[in-house]
Amino acid sequence: MVKKIAFLLIIGLLLASPISANTGEAASVDALNMMWVMLAAFLVFFMHAGFAMVESGFTRAKNSLNIIMKNLLTISIGPIVYFVVGYGIMFGSTAGSFIGADGFFLSGVDDIGFFVFQAMFVATCATIISGAVAERIKIGVYALIVVAMTSFVYPVVGHWIWSDNGWLAELGFSDFAGSTVVHLTGAVGAFTIVKFLGARIGKYSGDQVNVIPGHNIPMGALGVFILWLGWFGFNGGSTLEADPSLVPMVIATTLMSSSAAVISSAIYSKVKFKQLDASLVLNGALAGLVGITAGAAEMSIVGAIVVGLISGVILIEGISFIDAKLKVDDPVGATTVHGICGIWGTIAIGFFSVDTGLFYGYGISQLGIQALGVIAVIAWTTATVGLVTFVISKFTSIRVSSEEEISGLDIAEHGSNAYEFKDTISSKEAVQSDSDFGLADRLNSLSETKATS
Amino acid sequence: MVKKIAFLLIIGLLLASPISANTGEAASVDALNMMWVMLAAFLVFFMHAGFAMVESGFTRAKNSLNIIMKNLLTISIGPIVYFVVGYGIMFGSTAGSFIGADGFFLSGVDDIGFFVFQAMFVATCATIISGAVAERIKIGVYALIVVAMTSFVYPVVGHWIWSDNGWLAELGFSDFAGSTVVHLTGAVGAFTIVKFLGARIGKYSGDQVNVIPGHNIPMGALGVFILWLGWFGFNGGSTLEADPSLVPMVIATTLMSSSAAVISSAIYSKVKFKQLDASLVLNGALAGLVGITAGAAEMSIVGAIVVGLISGVILIEGISFIDAKLKVDDPVGATTVHGICGIWGTIAIGFFSVDTGLFYGYGISQLGIQALGVIAVIAWTTATVGLVTFVISKFTSIRVSSEEEISGLDIAEHGSNAYEFKDTISSKEAVQSDSDFGLADRLNSLSETKATS
Amino acid sequence: MVKKIAFLLIIGLLLASPISANTGEAASVDALNMMWVMLAAFLVFFMHAGFAMVESGFTRAKNSLNIIMKNLLTISIGPIVYFVVGYGIMFGSTAGSFIGADGFFLSGVDDIGFFVFQAMFVATCATIISGAVAERIKIGVYALIVVAMTSFVYPVVGHWIWSDNGWLAELGFSDFAGSTVVHLTGAVGAFTIVKFLGARIGKYSGDQVNVIPGHNIPMGALGVFILWLGWFGFNGGSTLEADPSLVPMVIATTLMSSSAAVISSAIYSKVKFKQLDASLVLNGALAGLVGITAGAAEMSIVGAIVVGLISGVILIEGISFIDAKLKVDDPVGATTVHGICGIWGTIAIGFFSVDTGLFYGYGISQLGIQALGVIAVIAWTTATVGLVTFVISKFTSIRVSSEEEISGLDIAEHGSNAYEFKDTISSKEAVQSDSDFGLADRLNSLSETKATS
Repeated sequence: MVKKIAFLLIIGLLLASPISANTGEAASVDALNMMWVMLAAFLVFFMHAGFAMVESGFTRAKNSLNIIMKNLLTISIGPIVYFVVGYGIMFGSTAGSFIGADGFFLSGVDDIGFFVFQAMFVATCATIISGAVAERIKIGVYALIVVAMTSFVYPVVGHWIWSDNGWLAELGFSDFAGSTVVHLTGAVGAFTIVKFLGARIGKYSGDQVNVIPGHNIPMGALGVFILWLGWFGFNGGSTLEADPSLVPMVIATTLMSSSAAVISSAIYSKVKFKQLDASLVLNGALAGLVGITAGAAEMSIVGAIVVGLISGVILIEGISFIDAKLKVDDPVGATTVHGICGIWGTIAIGFFSVDTGLFYGYGISQLGIQALGVIAVIAWTTATVGLVTFVISKFTSIRVSSEEEISGLDIAEHGSNAYEFKDTISSKEAVQSDSDFGLADRLNSLSETKATS
Repeated sequence: MVKKIAFLLIIGLLLASPISANTGEAASVDALNMMWVMLAAFLVFFMHAGFAMVESGFTRAKNSLNIIMKNLLTISIGPIVYFVVGYGIMFGSTAGSFIGADGFFLSGVDDIGFFVFQAMFVATCATIISGAVAERIKIGVYALIVVAMTSFVYPVVGHWIWSDNGWLAELGFSDFAGSTVVHLTGAVGAFTIVKFLGARIGKYSGDQVNVIPGHNIPMGALGVFILWLGWFGFNGGSTLEADPSLVPMVIATTLMSSSAAVISSAIYSKVKFKQLDASLVLNGALAGLVGITAGAAEMSIVGAIVVGLISGVILIEGISFIDAKLKVDDPVGATTVHGICGIWGTIAIGFFSVDTGLFYGYGISQLGIQALGVIAVIAWTTATVGLVTFVISKFTSIRVSSEEEISGLDIAEHGSNAYEFKDTISSKEAVQSDSDFGLADRLNSLSETKATS
Repeated sequence: MVKKIAFLLIIGLLLASPISANTGEAASVDALNMMWVMLAAFLVFFMHAGFAMVESGFTRAKNSLNIIMKNLLTISIGPIVYFVVGYGIMFGSTAGSFIGADGFFLSGVDDIGFFVFQAMFVATCATIISGAVAERIKIGVYALIVVAMTSFVYPVVGHWIWSDNGWLAELGFSDFAGSTVVHLTGAVGAFTIVKFLGARIGKYSGDQVNVIPGHNIPMGALGVFILWLGWFGFNGGSTLEADPSLVPMVIATTLMSSSAAVISSAIYSKVKFKQLDASLVLNGALAGLVGITAGAAEMSIVGAIVVGLISGVILIEGISFIDAKLKVDDPVGATTVHGICGIWGTIAIGFFSVDTGLFYGYGISQLGIQALGVIAVIAWTTATVGLVTFVISKFTSIRVSSEEEISGLDIAEHGSNAYEFKDTISSKEAVQSDSDFGLADRLNSLSETKATS
């Protein structure tokens, strides 16, 4: 009898033991999901390289070092401030639905991987500002604003929407990867500060709106590709687990929305301006990404394509509106890309969500909740960032002097230029150094020739 | 008795439950493989940034925006067209061994991750063309060709070789990751269109072959590094599962072939041209990658090194042959890198495959099948791309005007320049704007000096 | 009775069978860890793009091609030499605690994934040298030094510290991801060769120390971001398994140390030089990464932040010391970043390790072992690299001629320039080609104007 039982048990063990294509012990879901979130965190980290390339490429060479320093400081200050206070405010559970108040210094926090992923996000939100305030804000003032954004402005919004007991979360507000939490919050902060800062010298002369072209669009384009790549981690990682029934769909909607936005912004640019404007089409890719960020997990591929097509058109109209109508000088179009498209992406859920969307027969209630969330975040961010900027402005000028702005912030704040190409030019005849691409020498030697002739 | 059974059962459950270094439930192979394919898809996506950097860096600054726009449109148009029709033609099973005819709009398709991975591939094949036709094709015509490539030209080839019931697959044609499917198809398409387009103005004067140098080789070099990185996903992901007995070997052969090709192209360049030509050595890395793409899963590391060493030499001879002998103007050498090295990589399986190769004592049958596949793909692609290009050329000129070509496609088609470095130069004396690196001012001021002297 | 048993068995099987969020069979730990190590290897590979961008960006345009060729050759020569001999010397077990002597050509080696990961590391160590010797070493001589570094100099150090029976490993020397094995070894090699090479022309005039600015700092900044990204694989992958209880902490300490070093180098630069020096702050990020590399797995987040803050200050003082006091010309500060910060990171374990550190009450024994390891590696690397360089110098000059150095190594060794921006400039008036940004034409036309006036 016992022999029989033993036999049955052995069969049982064989049947019960995990049958795997690969030999060896079974991997845990914890390990698998950890790896997925780490991969996503790496990709979101890399987005900061993308922001640096886009923002310096789309502005003038004389401010390149300054902008890159701002992006580098953001990804450096952000995670540390978030570790000390931001994470506790965002995910702390004790203080109710408006704000968290525990887990500072990660005390009592087990999931370090989740913290790392979120730390990359908080810096992303803050660095959106750097592009809009480019070419005239003092770097020290910018650093203080990053501290404010990462310590409480963004964490409070995150608590409302992404913590278990946030009031917008409890209302059913849906923002999968942060069209509102990350992008709208960053864009509203940027818009608020730009209103304090004013436009760059030479941007507006009376009614005339002058274009101040970027100095290195190929570098900016590389930044856009890097941001697109990073977004697969930004949206894909927001699943927080490597769920084969969800992740591929999130990646597909992210890809398709951005692709569609590139196409629609290209066509719309051609129709509206009679030419395919490279900067607008590059921003179109980002518009499609911001547009799908809220709904990536609850839209069909066709829905994502429609959201993207609309994002590309909104992008161009939005930039025209802010730049020419409002006369708000945002050198890289960050307030449109992250703000207007962030609102669109959040609202789009109310129409295109397969779970709650109007076009899928679910009525307008979700639409209302989405709109409420957008309004709340705009109000909170405008008020807090406005207050912080106002207070700072009482102690110091937030803007560099006209002389510094004209000479460039690289010389003014960093004491050097970003580029020094003279050697390329003078290499053929081995002329040594001196300024201006070896131009001075040439002009001098020329004038001498003339003099002696 | 029952107590004893219960006791034995408990022992049984303990023994049977998955023993893992990590606590918690077991991860599924589906989730693991999904994550691997997604990682690979991200890396293949990033290859498009690599193509953009290589192609703009290796051509002239006045066409930088235009080339980057072409790469961006390719990764945008490709996945959408592939979603609508291409995937169905490639992997549809109903219509037999020549072409598929179901799964349009992914209807009935479950594995979205596989689609995403394949969508990155189709765009890679199409974007190979953009480099060869650079600096003179109309962007609208290029976009139409991308639609043709991604809707049926590449999908049909893919159906022949990668679908379950493709006729070449059934013959035993072996092309692991696409030396033929992706690279040869793209290169033959490129070659065909270039024959219609003709050479760039100034490339050939009578018998003389002029070198038109790239404007930013460091950017091109970054592109090569990005492509090499992306290739680990391109080849590694083609396993479609995270098989520890296969994937590391695929990555090792991919790395070693490229490394060997860099070394052989460097040495061969030094021997043949008395100097280590940077553009050729950078292309050498790509030659080694294309060369190993077909056989990455069935070659030894030593075999991969030999394939790479040969690829590096073929690359240099191939570029000389196409550029100087055939007088076919391919600004970035795409037809050689992806075409000639693609053929070499496909044929190399017949020699170096540890499963079927001549050098491993398996006779020449595999070699014959590989050659047949190459011929079939060349014939199909030449015919279809030739027809498409011919039809388009009946409705519009496929080439920009001479004036546009000379002034640069950036100004002609996009209304702006890629670079504006004047501020770097003029920063020292804080001169404000105007064209040409502040050069005009200087020349004017100089001529005035002269005038007044 | 048997029915009852059968029933209980079925219950047992149900309970025992892996319950997973995902359906399907269980994934193996082998497959999971393989994927993690592959991802890490890809990221470490990408660091070579980072080195290429940093080193060419921080030096002069006339040497850009040359530096990039050196980085490309390093990641190409390194893995092949390591496959043939280096891996066997590093991980071979037969020859005792000083050196390995089996596993050449990977004979008897099963874990190909581990080899690939290590092959990326060996090239990283070697390429550290390329930055320090930039702008004057002959590329052929550099290639020979790479062979020496990857065949035995680094493998022997690796055997001491990372092989099962290495003598430093047996003493308890701790170097998780290679502050000493990779970074110090590379930096000492660099320092030794630079002593043979001497300074670049124009770097020191008597007591005066001249700054030779880099030509493209934004490109260098991209390189720093890429290196930071790659470091997550460099440190994270050194766990060799996707352990959810270890990996996230390693990533968190890596991120926090680098962030802290950026902040401390920014503040210290501002205090010491009255301005925020971009090159120093960018190097600060790398300093924080090298500083945490040894202890990433055994430090707290607060400990990592302190290590990083100190790294940022050491970086600035170290560069001043080597550049101005020692008058050793290291164009990119590699000896400080990888050497001095590598020593600091190794020693820091003695203070900040939560397992063995002085500040955690464990006495000074670990500190002594760490110091011993540092001294041993400095002695070994100085002796071997010094001997190799000395022997090479008996056969050929290791340095290019003054004419070649002044004209630039790109022209001298590669026959072309890295940049050709003339088209951007001349595009507006469609001037065709010729040298110097279309400058010559302008000057000629101008002089003609004068002549005729």
